[in-house]
Amino acid sequence: MFKSAGLVARYDKKQALKLADNLAEYLAGKGVEVYLEDTLRGRVKSAGKLVPLRDMKTDFVIAIGGDGTILRTCITLPKPEPPILAVNMGVRGFLTEVAPEEACQAVDRILKGDFKIEKCSKLSTLANGEPTPDALNDVVVSGGEPSKILYLQIFKDDLPIAQLEADGVIISTPTGSTGYTLSAGGPIIDPETDAIVLTPICSLTTFRSMVFRGDTKIRIESVRPKEMLVLVDGAYRRLLPSKNPTVTVSQSKNVTSFIRFKANFYTRLESRLQFKGCFEERDEK
Amino acid sequence: MFKSAGLVARYDKKQALKLADNLAEYLAGKGVEVYLEDTLRGRVKSAGKLVPLRDMKTDFVIAIGGDGTILRTCITLPKPEPPILAVNMGVRGFLTEVAPEEACQAVDRILKGDFKIEKCSKLSTLANGEPTPDALNDVVVSGGEPSKILYLQIFKDDLPIAQLEADGVIISTPTGSTGYTLSAGGPIIDPETDAIVLTPICSLTTFRSMVFRGDTKIRIESVRPKEMLVLVDGAYRRLLPSKNPTVTVSQSKNVTSFIRFKANFYTRLESRLQFKGCFEERDEK
Amino acid sequence: MFKSAGLVARYDKKQALKLADNLAEYLAGKGVEVYLEDTLRGRVKSAGKLVPLRDMKTDFVIAIGGDGTILRTCITLPKPEPPILAVNMGVRGFLTEVAPEEACQAVDRILKGDFKIEKCSKLSTLANGEPTPDALNDVVVSGGEPSKILYLQIFKDDLPIAQLEADGVIISTPTGSTGYTLSAGGPIIDPETDAIVLTPICSLTTFRSMVFRGDTKIRIESVRPKEMLVLVDGAYRRLLPSKNPTVTVSQSKNVTSFIRFKANFYTRLESRLQFKGCFEERDEK
Amino acid sequence: MFKSAGLVARYDKKQALKLADNLAEYLAGKGVEVYLEDTLRGRVKSAGKLVPLRDMKTDFVIAIGGDGTILRTCITLPKPEPPILAVNMGVRGFLTEVAPEEACQAVDRILKGDFKIEKCSKLSTLANGEPTPDALNDVVVSGGEPSKILYLQIFKDDLPIAQLEADGVIISTPTGSTGYTLSAGGPIIDPETDAIVLTPICSLTTFRSMVFRGDTKIRIESVRPKEMLVLVDGAYRRLLPSKNPTVTVSQSKNVTSFIRFKANFYTRLESRLQFKGCFEERDEK
Repeated sequence: MFKSAGLVARYDKKQALKLADNLAEYLAGKGVEVYLEDTLRGRVKSAGKLVPLRDMKTDFVIAIGGDGTILRTCITLPKPEPPILAVNMGVRGFLTEVAPEEACQAVDRILKGDFKIEKCSKLSTLANGEPTPDALNDVVVSGGEPSKILYLQIFKDDLPIAQLEADGVIISTPTGSTGYTLSAGGPIIDPETDAIVLTPICSLTTFRSMVFRGDTKIRIESVRPKEMLVLVDGAYRRLLPSKNPTVTVSQSKNVTSFIRFKANFYTRLESRLQFKGCFEERDEK
Repeated sequence: MFKSAGLVARYDKKQALKLADNLAEYLAGKGVEVYLEDTLRGRVKSAGKLVPLRDMKTDFVIAIGGDGTILRTCITLPKPEPPILAVNMGVRGFLTEVAPEEACQAVDRILKGDFKIEKCSKLSTLANGEPTPDALNDVVVSGGEPSKILYLQIFKDDLPIAQLEADGVIISTPTGSTGYTLSAGGPIIDPETDAIVLTPICSLTTFRSMVFRGDTKIRIESVRPKEMLVLVDGAYRRLLPSKNPTVTVSQSKNVTSFIRFKANFYTRLESRLQFKGCFEERDEK
Repeated sequence: MFKSAGLVARYDKKQALKLADNLAEYLAGKGVEVYLEDTLRGRVKSAGKLVPLRDMKTDFVIAIGGDGTILRTCITLPKPEPPILAVNMGVRGFLTEVAPEEACQAVDRILKGDFKIEKCSKLSTLANGEPTPDALNDVVVSGGEPSKILYLQIFKDDLPIAQLEADGVIISTPTGSTGYTLSAGGPIIDPETDAIVLTPICSLTTFRSMVFRGDTKIRIESVRPKEMLVLVDGAYRRLLPSKNPTVTVSQSKNVTSFIRFKANFYTRLESRLQFKGCFEERDEK
Repeated sequence: MFKSAGLVARYDKKQALKLADNLAEYLAGKGVEVYLEDTLRGRVKSAGKLVPLRDMKTDFVIAIGGDGTILRTCITLPKPEPPILAVNMGVRGFLTEVAPEEACQAVDRILKGDFKIEKCSKLSTLANGEPTPDALNDVVVSGGEPSKILYLQIFKDDLPIAQLEADGVIISTPTGSTGYTLSAGGPIIDPETDAIVLTPICSLTTFRSMVFRGDTKIRIESVRPKEMLVLVDGAYRRLLPSKNPTVTVSQSKNVTSFIRFKANFYTRLESRLQFKGCFEERDEK
């Protein structure tokens, strides 16, 4: 059973801080040892221990915020990552599971062992040979400045498969396919699919989204001397100088585990895409 | 070793018929028993036996034509299908392997066993419970007439996952992802990926291409009484009446095996998408 | 001032018929001479005169239904068309102006002259030289059956400008740009723009939507012998035989005039595209 | 008649410099007074006068390079701009008119008055109230860094028409519609159309390209405090701080005049989109 819990919360929102306080107290009342991310120091009243996120080796973690908070938590948590309960403190947290008012009830279910674990594959990146943090959603390769065209050569397991002129490319997990990939015109990858999807950003050439097996290694090289920006989950950035920048992306051995109470990917997607209720009565063409 | 060969050719092109004649003679000269599709009766001079395509139980089959000829051959051949050498008698035969002038050399390599087999998954369809032929490329579900809107409910393994208003949907194999799916805005699925892709045609709602694991069963129902047309590989059509039409698509146990001499999916794709040579020298933005 | 009114209503909905009855009575009570479309015979109790839609030469017309009803009304009304008040009896009637419960109030404003007229350009089509009805939304040129590829040559004022392989093309007015054109990936044309937009349907080639000046004549020819279906406003169909089918589309001298009370194109569009309320508070990437 | 000519050339290409030398000599031999952009100092042997581009008040200008060179020339030339002959020293110079080997012949025709002028509308931009150079192609509004989401409110002539969450928007002339707008999924605007087109870049919401009358004023505001980058013709950049950044774009009084010998927009487009030769013989679906 879970004997320790970590608490992460966005600290720019009073309600998130208040919920963190409530949950810390609730968990302590249940006999769970509580750790709080040290960025909450002075912002919460709770008696929990303050630790940096990268040292939060608890049995599970509650992250209060939206997708940005979740992504930051996944990037920073020690590996292997403890399972995460994501509490939505925002409106459209696609990755989140429960509403703030359901948080205590969710804790009860977790402590009783009444939940499922959804394991999400992550992407491991080498930027000029140096590892970056793993991505839960996506790795974006773009120019050093907005709207700068890149001339890219794409390799699949060392086989050159395509060239493209574009602002960049997004390499995404199934989880990330509903995020930036979707905005760039890519497909939705069912979460049970073991796949990696590559999607161009503003391609001049007739390049399309490409879906690969999960165990594929994608390498991206710049054909011309151009700075390359590597952006992991929209949170971690590294700028590669213009001399032969190379980015390699493949599935990580690490996964992110979400605590889930119901299978609701398509319910969340419907809300994300707003195609709900499209069949109300009407006159037709 | 291969002791018998079947010959299929489009009969609206003299060169295809001539090549069929040449190959029949060439194969016979090598001691291979030759069968010709009976639609070639009176159109070729060769001495090969004439059989209907559905009875062509030969060790391998040579299909001379473009993608349309290949698709028709796959649909009709007896199961399990003999491996197919596809000779391109057209310009952009995406599924084909060799040019007409390479056909005899290809036969030599085949008879020596010097080739690879590319196995392509196919789709099995139930239209109102009745099976249709398997699809190598795609199954299209649309209204009975062009540009008729359908109101569809999509199920994934009996779970309702989305509703859409569209002219129809395309359910495609990785092989078919470079065909009609591409025209409708869908992604390219690497041929090594075990996946099924669903792509809407002219969707009114913000529906997107969706990629599923290969073992997923997709069911499509019409929410309103509307005729539904099922189109397999652009060749086989069945019209379902407007009362509760239902189409179920999943991977077939049957596969199509292509005789290949090189791994050239991305070379063919480059030519298909015409993104070749996009890096010639130029002035930049 | 308006002394006569025509009433058109979809007759498959009780509420539409009831509203037609109410409006007929209300208008008569105001001293307006009321005409009802003769398809309502036996379906309404009102004392109004029954006339075919094509003979409805009234000062204005009230159309009760959704976009399909409006399009049918525009196609059939005698030219020049009387102005139309469109009452929405459906959910997403994009072309409609008022809700059913606002209909009587709208009549009051009309009789007082308190309204604006929105003039919408229409498209005049020659299908193999023979005129079809004018289109308020769009003219679709496709194959005779769903998902049949066409090989089209496009002319702009007799200049050949592009070839494409596609299921078809949509030629649309600014009004129609929010309809089928949108589903096919085309742009939205602001209603004040004098333009015609051509959008391919499932184009195999890298063809894109093209926007032309309103006084442009677009001609579409089939490069190969293929049946061509011409579909006007989703309501009028004509099938051209496969020998040299040619469709010419240009702006009509006729316009459709809608009675409007407010400038609300972008409000209606927002609801059509469902991009409303996208800025609610949330956590960011 | 034209008595003076300005010469602009990319100086990173020997052939461009050599052609500049040849043309300077050729023009001088015809009695034309020759001015060279002063960046060519020490790079060419010609005796022409060296002047900064912004002072090049000649009867016409010859620009040697690709689209980047042309855009830089248009931005910097004194207003009203002298007409430009664009010589393509690159491969896909979409804006250019003649190949290097046709340059002398083009000069002959120009001096005889045997040419047409194509006037291209330009965009005038106010970034936080301060003017930027006019754009021939487009004005891009994006975040300060790549892949940073913006929350934008769009106004049409001070009417709020849409909100969007996106990496940015492109506001383009018809000329620019074949450039970055095309890469972002926008339509092609026929050059005779008086229009402005707005296209989102990686929009999270279901926002689409919008086409407006040429005399429309588009205003873009950030709903949240975010840095905004304004990029004119991919060449001029200005970063607006995060406090209430506002960008207003409308047609400029200034135009760019290209010297053209033939109407070839669609020929150039065909090459740009590579949809040429798509009707070669083949087998069909």
